[in-house]
Amino acid sequence: MSKTRKDRQFRPLPVPNVELDGLFGARQDAICDSTAETLLDRCVEAGMVRAIDTSQPSPGIVIPLQPWAGSTQMFWDSDLGKSIETIAYSLYRRPNPKLEASADAIIDMYEKMQDKDGYLNAWFQRVQPGRRWTNLRDHHELYCAGHLIEGAVAYYQATGKRKLLDIMCRYADYMITVFGHGEGQLPGYCGHEEVELALVKLARVTGEKKYLDLAKFFIDERGREPHFFTEEALRDGRDPKAFIQKTYQYNQAHEPVREQTKVVGHAVRAMYLYSGMADIATEYNDDTLTAALETLWDDLTAKQMYVTGGIGPAASNEGFTDYYDLPNESAYAETCASVGLVFWANRMLGRGPDRRYADIMEQALYNGAMSGLSLDGKTFFYENPLESAGKHHRWTWHHCPCCPPNIARLLASIGSYMYAVADDEIAVHLYGESKAKVEIAGAKLELAQTTRYPWDGAIRFEATLDKPARFALSLRIPEWAEGTTLAVNGEAVDLTAVTVDGYARIEREWRSGDRVALDIPLTARALFANPNVRQDAGRAALMRGPLVYCVEATDNGAGLNGITLVGDPAAAKGTEIPDFDGAIALDVAVQRDQAEDWGKSLYRTSPPASHDATARFIPYHLWDNREPGEMLVWIRAGHRARGV
Amino acid sequence: MSKTRKDRQFRPLPVPNVELDGLFGARQDAICDSTAETLLDRCVEAGMVRAIDTSQPSPGIVIPLQPWAGSTQMFWDSDLGKSIETIAYSLYRRPNPKLEASADAIIDMYEKMQDKDGYLNAWFQRVQPGRRWTNLRDHHELYCAGHLIEGAVAYYQATGKRKLLDIMCRYADYMITVFGHGEGQLPGYCGHEEVELALVKLARVTGEKKYLDLAKFFIDERGREPHFFTEEALRDGRDPKAFIQKTYQYNQAHEPVREQTKVVGHAVRAMYLYSGMADIATEYNDDTLTAALETLWDDLTAKQMYVTGGIGPAASNEGFTDYYDLPNESAYAETCASVGLVFWANRMLGRGPDRRYADIMEQALYNGAMSGLSLDGKTFFYENPLESAGKHHRWTWHHCPCCPPNIARLLASIGSYMYAVADDEIAVHLYGESKAKVEIAGAKLELAQTTRYPWDGAIRFEATLDKPARFALSLRIPEWAEGTTLAVNGEAVDLTAVTVDGYARIEREWRSGDRVALDIPLTARALFANPNVRQDAGRAALMRGPLVYCVEATDNGAGLNGITLVGDPAAAKGTEIPDFDGAIALDVAVQRDQAEDWGKSLYRTSPPASHDATARFIPYHLWDNREPGEMLVWIRAGHRARGV
Repeated sequence: MSKTRKDRQFRPLPVPNVELDGLFGARQDAICDSTAETLLDRCVEAGMVRAIDTSQPSPGIVIPLQPWAGSTQMFWDSDLGKSIETIAYSLYRRPNPKLEASADAIIDMYEKMQDKDGYLNAWFQRVQPGRRWTNLRDHHELYCAGHLIEGAVAYYQATGKRKLLDIMCRYADYMITVFGHGEGQLPGYCGHEEVELALVKLARVTGEKKYLDLAKFFIDERGREPHFFTEEALRDGRDPKAFIQKTYQYNQAHEPVREQTKVVGHAVRAMYLYSGMADIATEYNDDTLTAALETLWDDLTAKQMYVTGGIGPAASNEGFTDYYDLPNESAYAETCASVGLVFWANRMLGRGPDRRYADIMEQALYNGAMSGLSLDGKTFFYENPLESAGKHHRWTWHHCPCCPPNIARLLASIGSYMYAVADDEIAVHLYGESKAKVEIAGAKLELAQTTRYPWDGAIRFEATLDKPARFALSLRIPEWAEGTTLAVNGEAVDLTAVTVDGYARIEREWRSGDRVALDIPLTARALFANPNVRQDAGRAALMRGPLVYCVEATDNGAGLNGITLVGDPAAAKGTEIPDFDGAIALDVAVQRDQAEDWGKSLYRTSPPASHDATARFIPYHLWDNREPGEMLVWIRAGHRARGV
Repeated sequence: MSKTRKDRQFRPLPVPNVELDGLFGARQDAICDSTAETLLDRCVEAGMVRAIDTSQPSPGIVIPLQPWAGSTQMFWDSDLGKSIETIAYSLYRRPNPKLEASADAIIDMYEKMQDKDGYLNAWFQRVQPGRRWTNLRDHHELYCAGHLIEGAVAYYQATGKRKLLDIMCRYADYMITVFGHGEGQLPGYCGHEEVELALVKLARVTGEKKYLDLAKFFIDERGREPHFFTEEALRDGRDPKAFIQKTYQYNQAHEPVREQTKVVGHAVRAMYLYSGMADIATEYNDDTLTAALETLWDDLTAKQMYVTGGIGPAASNEGFTDYYDLPNESAYAETCASVGLVFWANRMLGRGPDRRYADIMEQALYNGAMSGLSLDGKTFFYENPLESAGKHHRWTWHHCPCCPPNIARLLASIGSYMYAVADDEIAVHLYGESKAKVEIAGAKLELAQTTRYPWDGAIRFEATLDKPARFALSLRIPEWAEGTTLAVNGEAVDLTAVTVDGYARIEREWRSGDRVALDIPLTARALFANPNVRQDAGRAALMRGPLVYCVEATDNGAGLNGITLVGDPAAAKGTEIPDFDGAIALDVAVQRDQAEDWGKSLYRTSPPASHDATARFIPYHLWDNREPGEMLVWIRAGHRARGV
């Protein structure tokens, strides 16, 4: 009875339908307790709220212009949009009238600021009013609109208040008149993708296909010749070649999106584009987009992704460089980029569960993305290197504050990434203590997931149904999860018989009280990088389940590059880390070079002595939550660990 | 009869007194054939000559201002000075009337441009005439003067023409009126050291102690409180804290020079300062300076120096960072900085031969410095990384063209670094096919050195004397030179009995026809870095004699980080490299990771397979002289190579 993969349309569960506890619950508590308010406070401190307060004079240019793309002030609407989105999700978990009132006040200001025709942008209404739509390549207008749309959708869903949603519908309706191939219309698209995926959200919440069509227009136009960015530059009296980023690859606008085969340019932009493409592929069942996305997916994940799911190694373009170029200490690997990879991966699941995407989603989420937020929810990483000599630390704010609200809104809405539903199927992409409520096959289902995952691999499901119903429950079996077992109501299930695309698919008539036991062994394993990754040669990274581990000086003292992995890390002892919510450390047999008895010389003809030792590894996303110091993911792998 | 170390004053042999062949001879031929003229051509192309041509209007600002220190155009006098110096040395080896005429024309222009009071500076006479002496911290006026003085001294010695020397004496006489503690005088010094060592050269060639005194004044004033840079900024209406480099450590002006214990800031500036300090220590027998220099020497060579003798790892300050921070791929290690280290090391020998300095001088010369010039003398390195993924290549010119004339003038005058004389002693610091002429102990000595060093360790000396004379011949026995033997007129000398500070000191009555045979075994050896150098952990560098070796893709294919050294490199086979003037490559037993059969995945749980192979190592300074590609110095060291 199951449909073919092509026809299936899976949509994430709405945020309020999933109630979380465990690790994700703790992160959401930190966001409710600290991050949501912190974001708002710092937006106020930066002057973002004054910037949209029409009762006060325009603040003008608050911080110095960047040579490359105007000022980060030009993107302030996006930071407010993401903050409102975070606040919205946090209100589900914990009502907070003060925070809600602050969001309402901001929304009122946007209402007052909005132009009669629907246009809305703090910079181009208040600082450079004459420059509207003159430079889509650099000016971030549609990017800002996209984040305000996402905020509006989330806030409407969380509070039932339509004001911001109506504002953004008016803006989107105006956009429909501005963009197109008609007389006087612009056949353009934004230099920083984002509005595409936002318009899909707007269409889904309003049921208005016109917003989908606009998103599809932006995607279809991108990279076509004659090139819009070139034409608009000429129209605007600018030299099209005077583009600091040199190539339209930076904006993924170097060729039509369906012809793109290599992941290039600014990493966050790329992820947002592919997310929008995947949404449109799902909504229009557009296989031409899906084919391009599958090629790009392989290109990214097989040649350009850190083991943490971090992407975009270079600071110079905040993005991609060459294949297999993955420097560890200088890794840019922006938090936003890993968040974007989670967005994209999640949307690749729109056409059906496939662990090819869900495994990476989990890897990027737990490592490259979650590292961006401290345990207390108050400090942030922008760059996420895989090695630090001890000077890379979380900060309280950033001149370009894109990452804090991005990781916050992802974690605050993570329930919707865990579960997805089609007509007669529910997929569990991520594991974690939670309850999901959904209508499926005409019945009301509450699916309770009980587990200490990712610290323990025992996962129990119990279904509560208002009536028996026939549907499929699809459970992801991660590629790394050797030895996994599954039982339904105590009866073992042959995984090889039921696993499709890496998901155990249990299709049956489900009744209230039905129980599923999934046991995923969480054994530490050493990973080795493709020999083309020069930076990781002779080294190994430890993983346990979806978590990448690292060594920190606070546990191990300095000189982390003097540690050599010996033997099989599967023998590592798991120990709970104090004050870390039950997180598991790994104590692993290693050898350590001796720096103490080396002497004074810088170079000599005999290698350092070494001794047997135990090193403590902690999950990468938890680093820099204690004493500052060195950190290292890729440790040297001795001949025994390498089997040489 | 030998004096104590303290009282000895060794001075380098004048450039024309040493005639070179062999490796250095070939480099000098390339400079005569190409570099000297290339330098001049490119100075003309850049507009440097037009800038001092008072018959033409001031060129104004030719290239965009740098935010940190004005424009590189502000240093153009220094580039012309170093080019004239290079031309001067090249004229000894090969008369070149055309080149000499070009230099004469430039000197005529300087004569016309010089102010009545003696002041001379293209920028502050022609571009910003009102700004003379207003910002010593940033404006490079004395730095430019210093290079013109060095050029003047060299040109006078090479051609006998005094014009530029007289110009610079007038300028230096004017400086004496400007700087001092008297009424209306400036108690200042230059933000970029250089004039100090130049004034010593001027004093030595003119016999005028007043120039020494001015050099000593600059050195003594440096870093004193109240701080000159702060006071001059306030006088000039600038905020002293608005210093892009943040700290006076950048200029080694953070404390008085005799109190400095750590090598900090801009690497070239540091080397030039220490060179000047060493000269003054020699000229004034100033032990307080010597003590400070010895501390700084250990600080640099035991904690902050690449194995190539490259120094200053960071691009941000073109200088030093933290102890043991020696990144290989991103190494700045400016050619000029290694050249500066050779200058400093050579001057540390002014108080007597000591291999502590001479070994490093040789190491920096043959590796970090000589890498800066291509074999054909036409292209240059500014940065000298110890690893390249294949995109770092020699260029024909640079917006800040300090390095090409610097390495050129060093190599063109290298004879004076090889030999030094005191009253009754001659020291041979560097080996190489050459003839040195010197008056010593009342006799005329011609010392012929016959050798293929550094390719072969057999070194033969023959003395020709107009009469027998008693003096000491001191021959450096490098610290790495295990098993060295020495014979005088065929009779073996017990090295342990005659070696002082790493020099075999043969004091006797020398007669014409006396022969010395020095045999230094050149066996390849693996070097290991102090475990505190995180970037080199688990790796080894190969050296043979003074030469650091590297692997290049053109010999070994790509994937150099997949190479692991196994076994003892002493067993390596030496082979002559085609078309490289007899240079010796080393063919070494290694293991190589197999990238071919790895498959498509980026990460996996089993390490790559590896196979036994032979890798070809070539001298580091010769890299990027053939097909472009990857390069690597520090290769992985297997457990057998590490004796684990």
